[in-house]
Amino acid sequence: MIDFRTEPSRYRHWKLSVEGAVATLALDVAEDGGLFPGYELKLNSYDLGVDIELNDAVQRLRFEHPAVRVVVLTSGKERVFCAGANIRMLGGASHAHKVNFCKFTNETRNSIEDASNASGQIWMAAVNGPCAGGGYEMALACEHILLADDGSSAVSLPEVPLLAVLPGTGGLTRLVDKRHVRRDRADFFCTTEEGVRGKRAVDWRLVDEIAPRSRFAEATAARAKALAAKSNRPADARGVSLTPVARRIEGDRIHYGTLTVEIDRGRAAATFTIRGPGAPPPADAAAVQALGAAFWPLAFARDLDDAILHLRFNEGAVGTWVLRTEGDLAAVAAYDALLERESRHWLVHEITLNLKRVLKRLDLSSRTIFSLVEPGSCFAGTLAELLLASDRVYMLDGGFEGDNRPPPRVRLTAMNFGPYRTVTGLTRLASRHLGEAGGAEDAWVRVGEDLDAPAAEALGLATFTPDDIDWEDEVRLAIEERAAFSPDALTGMEASLRFPGPETMESKIFARLTAWQNWIFQRPNAIGEAGALKLYGSGKRPEFDRGRV
Amino acid sequence: MIDFRTEPSRYRHWKLSVEGAVATLALDVAEDGGLFPGYELKLNSYDLGVDIELNDAVQRLRFEHPAVRVVVLTSGKERVFCAGANIRMLGGASHAHKVNFCKFTNETRNSIEDASNASGQIWMAAVNGPCAGGGYEMALACEHILLADDGSSAVSLPEVPLLAVLPGTGGLTRLVDKRHVRRDRADFFCTTEEGVRGKRAVDWRLVDEIAPRSRFAEATAARAKALAAKSNRPADARGVSLTPVARRIEGDRIHYGTLTVEIDRGRAAATFTIRGPGAPPPADAAAVQALGAAFWPLAFARDLDDAILHLRFNEGAVGTWVLRTEGDLAAVAAYDALLERESRHWLVHEITLNLKRVLKRLDLSSRTIFSLVEPGSCFAGTLAELLLASDRVYMLDGGFEGDNRPPPRVRLTAMNFGPYRTVTGLTRLASRHLGEAGGAEDAWVRVGEDLDAPAAEALGLATFTPDDIDWEDEVRLAIEERAAFSPDALTGMEASLRFPGPETMESKIFARLTAWQNWIFQRPNAIGEAGALKLYGSGKRPEFDRGRV
Repeated sequence: MIDFRTEPSRYRHWKLSVEGAVATLALDVAEDGGLFPGYELKLNSYDLGVDIELNDAVQRLRFEHPAVRVVVLTSGKERVFCAGANIRMLGGASHAHKVNFCKFTNETRNSIEDASNASGQIWMAAVNGPCAGGGYEMALACEHILLADDGSSAVSLPEVPLLAVLPGTGGLTRLVDKRHVRRDRADFFCTTEEGVRGKRAVDWRLVDEIAPRSRFAEATAARAKALAAKSNRPADARGVSLTPVARRIEGDRIHYGTLTVEIDRGRAAATFTIRGPGAPPPADAAAVQALGAAFWPLAFARDLDDAILHLRFNEGAVGTWVLRTEGDLAAVAAYDALLERESRHWLVHEITLNLKRVLKRLDLSSRTIFSLVEPGSCFAGTLAELLLASDRVYMLDGGFEGDNRPPPRVRLTAMNFGPYRTVTGLTRLASRHLGEAGGAEDAWVRVGEDLDAPAAEALGLATFTPDDIDWEDEVRLAIEERAAFSPDALTGMEASLRFPGPETMESKIFARLTAWQNWIFQRPNAIGEAGALKLYGSGKRPEFDRGRV
Repeated sequence: MIDFRTEPSRYRHWKLSVEGAVATLALDVAEDGGLFPGYELKLNSYDLGVDIELNDAVQRLRFEHPAVRVVVLTSGKERVFCAGANIRMLGGASHAHKVNFCKFTNETRNSIEDASNASGQIWMAAVNGPCAGGGYEMALACEHILLADDGSSAVSLPEVPLLAVLPGTGGLTRLVDKRHVRRDRADFFCTTEEGVRGKRAVDWRLVDEIAPRSRFAEATAARAKALAAKSNRPADARGVSLTPVARRIEGDRIHYGTLTVEIDRGRAAATFTIRGPGAPPPADAAAVQALGAAFWPLAFARDLDDAILHLRFNEGAVGTWVLRTEGDLAAVAAYDALLERESRHWLVHEITLNLKRVLKRLDLSSRTIFSLVEPGSCFAGTLAELLLASDRVYMLDGGFEGDNRPPPRVRLTAMNFGPYRTVTGLTRLASRHLGEAGGAEDAWVRVGEDLDAPAAEALGLATFTPDDIDWEDEVRLAIEERAAFSPDALTGMEASLRFPGPETMESKIFARLTAWQNWIFQRPNAIGEAGALKLYGSGKRPEFDRGRV
């Protein structure tokens, strides 16, 4: 079982140090520290275990070190920056692991950019040695790349010539869409195993700056200082400690503080029951700070994030996620009001950004997402995003016979109109209303109202609204039917329907780039017995089927 | 060998009739008219042969019937509109054929939308019977869908539940991005084999209008009349006849009027030598009209289009296309000046749109595209688009020893700044200059200049500019090296680097949707021995690996 929970004292591959406004995160991979047996993590190459620590570091820097304005990503080894994802690990991994590994590493790269762009914690790469493949893709996620100017330090994306796969962690997209490398130069660069160094790397925009070895530390410090001056981070904020996410697995039940997941293997479905806040929100940001990781929105974000990752990696055969909530609409809305009111406070801002990232992770999960809105549920505001992230929503029209709770209602808050934009740059509500003349703005007038099933259906918050008589059969059939379809076809369909409207660099990475990579990860030229990924390091040359498709 | 050249008198599957401003194109598939043996085209299902005729009809309607303002796409059979792509054909086809078939049908659907949107020849679908899968995707390419309101006429996309593949001809993208069907409803629709009919089909925007059988002909005529009123087509223009594209294949040489393709199988490369116009352009649009299909830009567009399709389908192992030109820069520029000057004339407008479509087909071809700029070449304006479509351009700096022709030059014209936008909506020049402060506008001041190698390099019209001494080795090595890489990795890389910047509905169809479909077309759940596509019609149930990846 893969566990995504870690903390700096347990890191095997990264060294994190903080001095004033500058943090340094040095990659120093333990060769024998692979997550699975069968490969050694040579040359600062990484596997999922290395990336789990990186993801944790990105997160902790934001919450635990609010005074940090610049993060310097560098290598702790003398002669190499990073050789990218470990090839033997990739060669031996299942298709599903490869795909999920790439998705998670992509999400982590995006969270680095989110820290730089939304959170004022600006990442720079101090590339102090050869930097290949996924190593360069890590640097590409930073806002500034400083490359050592010596005989050996080059940046490269050797995947195509060497391994017959793509740079799968956003590299191709970031080259042309973020760094605006001219596409003909990018073509040459991506087919040149040895990469590009020195002045040409700067001229082609592959890096921002070069410095000789003798001046490298000095140049790094100077650049960090200059970037720090651009940050709007608070100077004297106190961090909050991200205490361990408490999880208890009992058979097919997974318990967290704010939610429980129950797996029904027969129907290949997992039901998430999310519990709304049990107490009213604290009065202000200072009180939020005092609560720290126990503050319900943050606790919920971290619990849900862990549950998503756990199910993605450890429960691949569970194809449908059913989302339920229990609690009080008004209580959730009260927390949303606090998030909105205190949105300029660094911690509240971070919590909102964290919720945003977790909701994006949900959108990007290759699982069917159904939501059920029943009596006692609390889909308001932030939790209503779950409805809008769903492939379908079933909402009971009226009550259940013999159940004296009132019929369910849903509620929109201001949080549905901006803070939680998806990878396409649209709000989830706008994604549902692309066809409306007024778009999502029409929904704005209903903010704060308790919406019954017909009203929710009209606003795109519910797909179907069966009554007591039809509810059980309709929901059961929908879930069972889903389990009968091809998981692959559902993945492709959901990836096509979930992201209507515009694309952004971020969404292009998950669509254009990732979908092609997944295809290549299935092709004999990469993974067949004579494929390049399989034969890497064996001394044998791959044999390719030369047909273009 | 698959031949894309046809004409209405040879159609086996379509009936084209024109009455005044309204053309009717009726699908009446010959069951025994499949392009390959092994399947029958039942229920108006189609294979590539049917689509080759459709592509020809779209093209001829625009050139030969300029007075047509509305095209009614309907079925010539009593009880079915169209059952989509033939499943047995798909089940038996190679991966490469499936992928190329989908790409070509997508391009044809896009050309239908281009006719409606850019050319004032508005397509409507008169859906007079059950309309499933690719049949509905054909209707989705039309601007208006009229559905018969009876017990049996429904629209459906049954691919996911029935075949474990995606609707691969733009259906998923057009549902949410063109018709703005709410994505939760689209989810239900795409997993419901029997589809949706009647009022719900209208309420969910799946169709625009329903009419009972008894009033169907009347409703079709009324809608055609209303749409015709919106068209800006000329009332009394005379069409030009699209005479057959003359092609002669001699061994590894393919001769057309305006170009020759020579295949070098050892290097897996095809060299296109395009001959610029041999005579000055005619004086005006009337003279263009008199020349008709012999007018050089139109002849070139049609020759290049046929060459691209021929190589895509019949020469899959030829992975690199090398583009060369021979002729006079000023002569090409003079034709461009005419195209610009007479751009409001319907025929000149159509020719420009045709060139635009052919250039897009080039961009979308899964082949490496290199261009060589040598003495005697004529890459100006429209032909300079070939450079901008290339993955790399090699331009000789200076002359060849012993060759007294002047060093090569390239030239931009106004045609490089708007008419030939790619699927992303950008000009090719803008795609190269995403990173420049002034973008492509900086190049505008150089329009009309003869640009030498360094100037071309600076403007993104050349990647490398070797001199006489390095030329032969550098070009040869680049081509040979390309042949050594995995064709699949190159396809994924090129698809990622060629389309920087924004995405449009059209580009999303080829990226997000197609890339996922290609992946699914490789997955055992679809194409394995127990896969749904293989077992379709056998009475056996597919067995799925339930793991999500």
